This record gives sequence, structure tokens and C-alpha cells, in this order.
Amino acid sequence: MAKKASRLRIIPLGGLDGIGKNMTVLEYGDDMIVIDAGIMFPDDDHPGVDLILPDFSYIVKRQEKLRAIVITHGHEDHTGALPYLLKTLDRRVPVLGTKLTLGLIRGKLEEHKLKKVELQEIQGGSHKSVGPFSFDFFAVNHSIPDGVGVFVRTPAGNVVHTGDFKLDQTPIDGRLVDYGALTKFCEIGVDLLMSDSTNAETPGVTRSEASVGPALRDIIANAEHRVIAASFSSHIHRVQQICDAAVAAGRKVVVAGRSMITNMRIARELGYLVIDDSDIIEASEASALPPDKVLVMCTGSQGEPLSALARMANGDHKTVKVERGDTVVIAATPVPGNEKAVNRIINRLAKAGATVAHRGTVHVHVSGHGASEELKLMLNLVRPRFFMPIHGETRHLVAHGLLAEAVRVPKENVFVLGNGDCLELSKSGARIAESVEHGVVYVDGLGVGDVGQVVLRDRRVLAQDGIATLVVTIDGQTGRLASDPELITRGLAFGPEENDLLAEAQARIVRTLAKTYNGGATDQAVIKKAMRDSLSQLLWERTRSRPMIIPVIVEV
Amino acid sequence: MAKKASRLRIIPLGGLDGIGKNMTVLEYGDDMIVIDAGIMFPDDDHPGVDLILPDFSYIVKRQEKLRAIVITHGHEDHTGALPYLLKTLDRRVPVLGTKLTLGLIRGKLEEHKLKKVELQEIQGGSHKSVGPFSFDFFAVNHSIPDGVGVFVRTPAGNVVHTGDFKLDQTPIDGRLVDYGALTKFCEIGVDLLMSDSTNAETPGVTRSEASVGPALRDIIANAEHRVIAASFSSHIHRVQQICDAAVAAGRKVVVAGRSMITNMRIARELGYLVIDDSDIIEASEASALPPDKVLVMCTGSQGEPLSALARMANGDHKTVKVERGDTVVIAATPVPGNEKAVNRIINRLAKAGATVAHRGTVHVHVSGHGASEELKLMLNLVRPRFFMPIHGETRHLVAHGLLAEAVRVPKENVFVLGNGDCLELSKSGARIAESVEHGVVYVDGLGVGDVGQVVLRDRRVLAQDGIATLVVTIDGQTGRLASDPELITRGLAFGPEENDLLAEAQARIVRTLAKTYNGGATDQAVIKKAMRDSLSQLLWERTRSRPMIIPVIVEV
Repeated sequence: MAKKASRLRIIPLGGLDGIGKNMTVLEYGDDMIVIDAGIMFPDDDHPGVDLILPDFSYIVKRQEKLRAIVITHGHEDHTGALPYLLKTLDRRVPVLGTKLTLGLIRGKLEEHKLKKVELQEIQGGSHKSVGPFSFDFFAVNHSIPDGVGVFVRTPAGNVVHTGDFKLDQTPIDGRLVDYGALTKFCEIGVDLLMSDSTNAETPGVTRSEASVGPALRDIIANAEHRVIAASFSSHIHRVQQICDAAVAAGRKVVVAGRSMITNMRIARELGYLVIDDSDIIEASEASALPPDKVLVMCTGSQGEPLSALARMANGDHKTVKVERGDTVVIAATPVPGNEKAVNRIINRLAKAGATVAHRGTVHVHVSGHGASEELKLMLNLVRPRFFMPIHGETRHLVAHGLLAEAVRVPKENVFVLGNGDCLELSKSGARIAESVEHGVVYVDGLGVGDVGQVVLRDRRVLAQDGIATLVVTIDGQTGRLASDPELITRGLAFGPEENDLLAEAQARIVRTLAKTYNGGATDQAVIKKAMRDSLSQLLWERTRSRPMIIPVIVEV
Repeated sequence: MAKKASRLRIIPLGGLDGIGKNMTVLEYGDDMIVIDAGIMFPDDDHPGVDLILPDFSYIVKRQEKLRAIVITHGHEDHTGALPYLLKTLDRRVPVLGTKLTLGLIRGKLEEHKLKKVELQEIQGGSHKSVGPFSFDFFAVNHSIPDGVGVFVRTPAGNVVHTGDFKLDQTPIDGRLVDYGALTKFCEIGVDLLMSDSTNAETPGVTRSEASVGPALRDIIANAEHRVIAASFSSHIHRVQQICDAAVAAGRKVVVAGRSMITNMRIARELGYLVIDDSDIIEASEASALPPDKVLVMCTGSQGEPLSALARMANGDHKTVKVERGDTVVIAATPVPGNEKAVNRIINRLAKAGATVAHRGTVHVHVSGHGASEELKLMLNLVRPRFFMPIHGETRHLVAHGLLAEAVRVPKENVFVLGNGDCLELSKSGARIAESVEHGVVYVDGLGVGDVGQVVLRDRRVLAQDGIATLVVTIDGQTGRLASDPELITRGLAFGPEENDLLAEAQARIVRTLAKTYNGGATDQAVIKKAMRDSLSQLLWERTRSRPMIIPVIVEV
């Protein structure tokens, strides 16, 4: 037992195969903690899927060991799986986060009707012990306020987990990264650093959030008509800068879009966003003001088709419509995969006669993740014995590993792992242990885990080539056709010869069935296969496509 | 008749709603010419579609007037629709292009078994007259050699069509844009300029193709192992620079990928690509050389899943496999919409242990389109009376229109049009006439025009929510159910309660049918609607999805 506990097992369950669904397990003997519980947003390869969760079965099966869930900041790729995890657990587990992080989480838990969650507020500089784990939280900068990293001490070794971070020397809230804490951890001894890899390929230093202020102020002060500004609703400092620029230019702020309304309310209540009540007005009041006295702060910077900005561009938002002369500022960058949606919106806005300012034309966006010089500095501040790049695609993890080597972490001490891999730390060193159960779970409509790989593969085939359902009625007594075969197709490419093709298909199927019947086949599976092969062959010959074919035999 | 002919009608049939399928009609009385005949590549919104053509019915219906098809350069978005157009025409129409452009077209025509096409070679500086149209071709720079623009004179007015262009002061082949010709056109008088808008939003000047040379030479000279370089196969100057760097570094060149092999062969035969036979080797010979003496020049810079680079990264290319230590150079930028595919390849390459150099990390790519300073210079060189931005999305056309205003083209003389719009030029001025028939045609498998909007909409629904086919057998005599309803689903999200749901669906359908029967309904359409509504309702309640539902009634 004592022997078993002499190892610290570090298992990233998500976040190592792309940006999103971050989740890391730290397990020491009979105790376990989880850092972050995020989702990933699906792309076109996942038709009809709403969310992607990391498969957290490993945690659920060992839930009696689970002492705490630490959330580093309030982004959905770190918090979004929390309601699903909590619903699955049979016991109460405390959730640790900073004030803003918990404020944002609280709203999500309410949506999921989770009422009895124990939320423990921490802040940069807090210390906490849970079983054999001792936590020291430290402030980091990111594209959402109040982010932290955590230094976790255990008898088997000490780990620094950075969360997502950049090193902003002029943060909007003046809250610097706690360099003193990091060097103190270094002094105590850091066995493993787990660090954000998102921008590991980017040379240099990510510019300060403050650097986008001048462009925002210039655009907002000089626009001759209304300004509509879109950004991530959780990017409170960006929102703050936009609101400040609006107020400085004598404009009142209209807030639009559900998450913008919610997050601005929470951030104002908790003191993270400062704007006078008198400077915020309802959309209905805006029409009484000259357009150059109004700024609309809204969601939609990712081109989401149902967002406020998309509705405004299409003329179907209930209160705001984009008009000729309006200036639209898209103060964000498209998340990979959203480029086309954002592009579509920019085209619609241009068509509606608006001037569109975006990161391609003016400096209205900076990243929330540190670039390679910052990542190297982080490595040099904590000087870890072992290093595991996290939060990124393979290319980012690999690049981050090379950065670690560049600052003289020995190559063999750099662990570029995958989800579900397990690193074991002990006094004698680090080693890769057997991988654990891991994967992804799709959330679709109301269901979790209903959509599997088979369903997705089916949907892709359906989307590519369509479907043909072939119904034959067979007399149960004689085994012979009781009526004409019926062929129903959807999504198939047919030429003008369509009717020909249908008639030919019927004729072929009749022949095929006669052959199987004469051959003595009575097994439905055999007959169905013959039907499928025969139709598939015909459709390939005639349309060069392979639709999904569903043979149905009705026995009467 | 004379009156009718006093107007020149300019009709862009494609290229004004995005990058691709460029095609412009110029019509004067009983004569007509077409400039470019391009395709567009489909995106995720067009599942199963291989190519998108502009709808050229307007041309086909007036084909007796068609005197010539002018092709400005050899890219597929300017040439790809040519085989389809030629196949549809009942008469021979000469195709005019430069040597390389015709060389590339010839290959395409052969693939389509089009043998008797009259190809007329022109070059920058050529003059040609066709009916009332007089052509002066002028050299331009672009990301393919031998591009031209054309000055078209007619009795009703003179038009400059730039094709795609940049103003490269140090082109690889030394072939400068013909500034002298442009100023001469200006002197003669340009009524309308139609100019490439792709980079109209980009400030400044596009860098010279020569500027990527140093980075390419540096990477290729210093790589310790094999180098694999991917680029567009038609970007002969990029290929030339890569080959030159390889030869300078003592590496032999292996060519991989069908279009790279074809285009390099054509370009070498015609003298556009210069590399010694002794410097090109077969893949089989490469294994005999040390890896640092080999460079593989291949396709796949867009992440195309069947391209040489993708196969090499996946380990299923028949002769080359990416190995640890290899350096891969992606000397291209992803075409919008291809970002994710390229990203996927970079991750696979990183996983395979290759170092990947791409435009995000080194200067290995420049655009082939002029940026805003070049576009303004073009306007100032030809000083047109009227201006029509072409080749771009709405945002680009609008931005280009503003550039024209900035160089003092009167606002009312700038025509930001859409596909199918018609601008009429006459001695008295320009006016927008009625739009003509236009649109898009999808090419899928072997067929042209088989896939319509209904098919695409169906495929999107299928991809999103799947399909449920509901088969009921009804006794033709009694009108009652002859066997249990059968439900077949594909691509549906089902939870663990799946069997429940199927049983419940069956029960509901039996009730629904009893109700319609008791209600006296015998019309199959009415019964099918009741079946569909009943099942749709159940699936929505239980899965919050709306799959396509196909009711089938078999009467026995």
C-alpha cells in the first residue's frame, strides 16, 4: 500500500489532440484530483454533434478517490464538461476556482439544474491542502480575467500546471503573472512542468492586450455612424476596452446577444467590468439617439449563424439591423475551422453597406496565449526536471518540446504524450506507464454519448452520396415477390435519365430475387445482400456514386 | 440593327461571388466573346460535389454569335470550365491563350477526349481582331507564368480586363508587367477597367516571388536529412526556386504527385521550368542516395487527402514515406476553407517526426495577387472612365471600389456588380441593364448538373440528423395493416433506450394508422403525412433531433 502510493500518476484525459476539452488527472494512492473539465466544439467532420466531451470514465470508476476539481479559468474548453462530470458522479466533490471562474460556472450549473455543488473560491496566492495534495495557486494572464495556474505538491513529486497563459506586462487589470511565486516554486523544486502549447510555433512574444486599445479608440471615435463591436463575451478586458472607448467618444452602449448580456452582467456584479449604469442603454432607447452616439456590444465574432451579429447582418435581429454607414468591428480572431463562417458574415456586412474592421485590416486582436519566448521564460522561471507540453495539437506539443530542449531540458526528460497516456513520477524519476481508458463522447440534442463513430460514419456517407431504400414484398408462403419492388432515394445525383434508372433498378432487382429464389436462398440476410450488391452495382455504373443502400424485405 | 450594335454589353457570369469560376461575356450586336472559363472548388456546404461551374446557358443559347474564348492564364479557376463549355457548344470556337496556358489546357482537353479544339497562341504584345473586337494582350505577373490581361476595343467602348495579376518588380522569369502597354491604352482611352480584387483589403504591396528564395535556400541547404517540398504544381516559379535550391545544395529532385509530374513535364518541354535531366531522379533511385542528397518535390500543399504529401505523411505512398528527421516545406498558403486539412497534415507530419516549415513559421509563400497599392497603381496607369471590380467576394469587390474612389474615379462610375449583372457601355456612358440568366452547375461523379439545390439540402439534413424509413404493409382489400410497421434508421442519435424507442414508434404508428383508417382516409399521401408527423413528433420528444423521415406504404 505504501509502495503503491509512492508514485504520482499524471494522466491528461484531453487537450493533447487539439485545442479544447482540457482535463488532467493527478492520482496518488487512494487520492485523486482533476484539473479542468473542458469541452471541444465540433467541426464539419462531426455533423449534428453539439459538443465533444473527453471520456471521463476513468474518473467516474475511481470516484471514491476524487478529492477536488480545480478549474484554472472560465473558458468553456476548461469548464464546459464540468456539469456533465458532476451529473455523472454519485458524490459531492468540491470545485475550486477564482471568483470570476466560479461566477461563470455558477450560471452553467444552473442551466443544468445542478444546485448542490460545493464551490470553493481561491485566488492567486491561495494555498489549500486536499488529502496528500497541497495546492499553491498563482495568477496568470489570459484572454479572460482571473486565470490561475497551480503548483501541486505531493510526497512523490511537485507539478506546475500553467493553465492557459500569456505573460502580459501591461494587463488591463494590472494583475501581473506572479513571477515571485514561480521562482519560489523553482526553489522548492519542480519535478514536472505542464505548460500551455497553443502558440508554441509562434516566434517572439504575444502582444499585450493593451496594444489593441489605440485601434479600438481610433475606430470608435472616428466612425461617423453607429459602431457595432463583436467579441468573445468572456473576454472581459476586450469588452472593457471597447466600452471605455465608447464612453470616451460619447457613445452609449447597447448590449446584444445572450452570452454577452449574461457575461457582462456577471463581470459587472463581481467587479471585473467597470461601466456606469448610465452608459448602458436598451436597444429601444438607441433609436432616440443619433447613430454616432451609439455602440452595440455583441456576440458573433466567430460567425455563429444564430449570434447577434449574424442576425443583425441578415436583418433578422429583433432590435438592431446593420445599416449603410455603420462600422462593424470584429475584435477577435476566428478559431480554426470558423474562418469561413466569419468570412461569410464579413461579406454580408459589406453587402449591407457597413465598413468592417477586423484583424486582417487593423490591430484589434491579440492572442491570449504566450508565444515561444514566453514559453521559454516560463520554463526558465520554474526550471522543471521533467516537462510535458499540454493544450495543443501534435504540432504545437512537438514545437513546445523543442523549446524545452532549447532551454536545456534534457531530451529524454521531455514527454510529448497523447490523451490517456500516464506519466508516473516518483522520487526515483519519471516513466511512462500503461495508458488508461480515454476517448471522446459526443453530445447531441438532449443526449450524451448517443452519437458514436458508426453514426458519424453513416452521416458522412449520407452527406456524400445520399441514400436509396429498396423495399420488396415477399409472399411468406411461396417466397416469391408479392408486389413491385419500391425504390426511394434521397440526396442522390440523378441525371435526366432518372426514370430509366428507376425502371432498370426495378427490373434488376426482380431478376436478382428470382436468381436467389431459384438458388434456394431463403435467409433474409443473404437475400438482402444480393439486393444491395445488385443495386449498388447499377448505381455505380450509372452515377459513379455509392449511396447508402437499405434493403427492406416485408413478408406478407 | 445598327442601333442595337451601338452598345457593348459586359456580363460577368462568375467570379463576383467568391474566388473562382471566373467567366465574363462581352457582347456587341451579333458578336460575342468570352474571357476565361473557370471552375470553383466546392466546400463542406456542398457534400459530394466535385466541381462547381458557372451556369453558361446564356452563352450556349447565343452560341452562333460566339467568336472566341480568351483565357488569361492556366489556373483552373480560369480554365476548368472550358472542357464543359466546349462540349456543350455545337460549333468550333477558337480558344486564345499564351503558350503555357494552352499547354496546360491541352492536357485537360485530352482528359475530356476533346480533340478538335482550335487553339490560337498569343503572347503579351500580341494583337488580334475577331469581328468587331480588337484585342491587345499584355503581360502580367501572377502565381503561374505567362499570364496576360487584355485590352479589348469595340466601336462602343474600350475595356481593360487585367486577369489575375500582381506587379512583381523582380519576377523569376524577368517578364515584367507591360507598363508601357498600359499607359498606351490610357492614351487611347479606357472606358472600363475590370480588375482583380482578391487582395483589395490587403494594405501595401505584395512581396516579390523572389523574396521567398532565401528562406527556401536556407532550409534546403541546412536540412540534415531529406527535404520534402510541397507546392501548387502550376506555380512553376515556386517549383523553379525549390529545384534551384535543391541543385545548389547538391540534392537530386524526385517528383511526386500526378499533377506535379504532368505540370513539371509540360513546363520543362515548353521552356518555363529549367532543370537538368541529370538532376531529376526516380523515387526508386533515391534510396541509393544519402537522405541529405534528396529533395522530393510534391503535391499536397492544400492538405488534399489523396495527394502525394498526405499519402507520404500517412505512410501509404507507394515510394516515399515521411521519416523522423525529414524536413517538410509547405511552400503555399491554404486556400480559404482548406485550413483544417492543411492543419491535419502538419499534425501528422509532426507526429511522424518531421520538421515542418510553413508560412506560419518561415517566409516560404507570397500571394500571386496585387495588394491595394498595386491595385491603385493599375487604376492610375490606365485611368478608366468606369470601373468594375472582379474576381473576389463581396468584401473584396467593395474594398476595391473604395480604392477606385481613393484614386478619384467618381463614385457613380464604380460598378460593384454581381454574377449575371449586365453593364452596357456606349458612347454616351455606362448603365446597368437587366440581369441575365446565371447561376451555378454542380459536377458530381460522372454527371454535370445532376445535383441540384434539393439534393444538397437533402444531403445536409441527412448529415445533420440522419434518416428514418418507416415501412407499413397495408392489405389492399381491407385497408388495414398486414404486418408490423418496420422502422429502419441510419445516422440517428439513439441513447441506451433505443429498443424502447423503436417499440414505442411501432405502437404509435399502429395507433396513427388506426386513426386515419377510422377517419376514413384512404389517400396514400394523407396516410403518409400522418405517419411522418407522428414519428417526427416522437423522435423530437425523445432525441431532440429532426431526421428525414421516409414513409413507405406497401399495398398487398
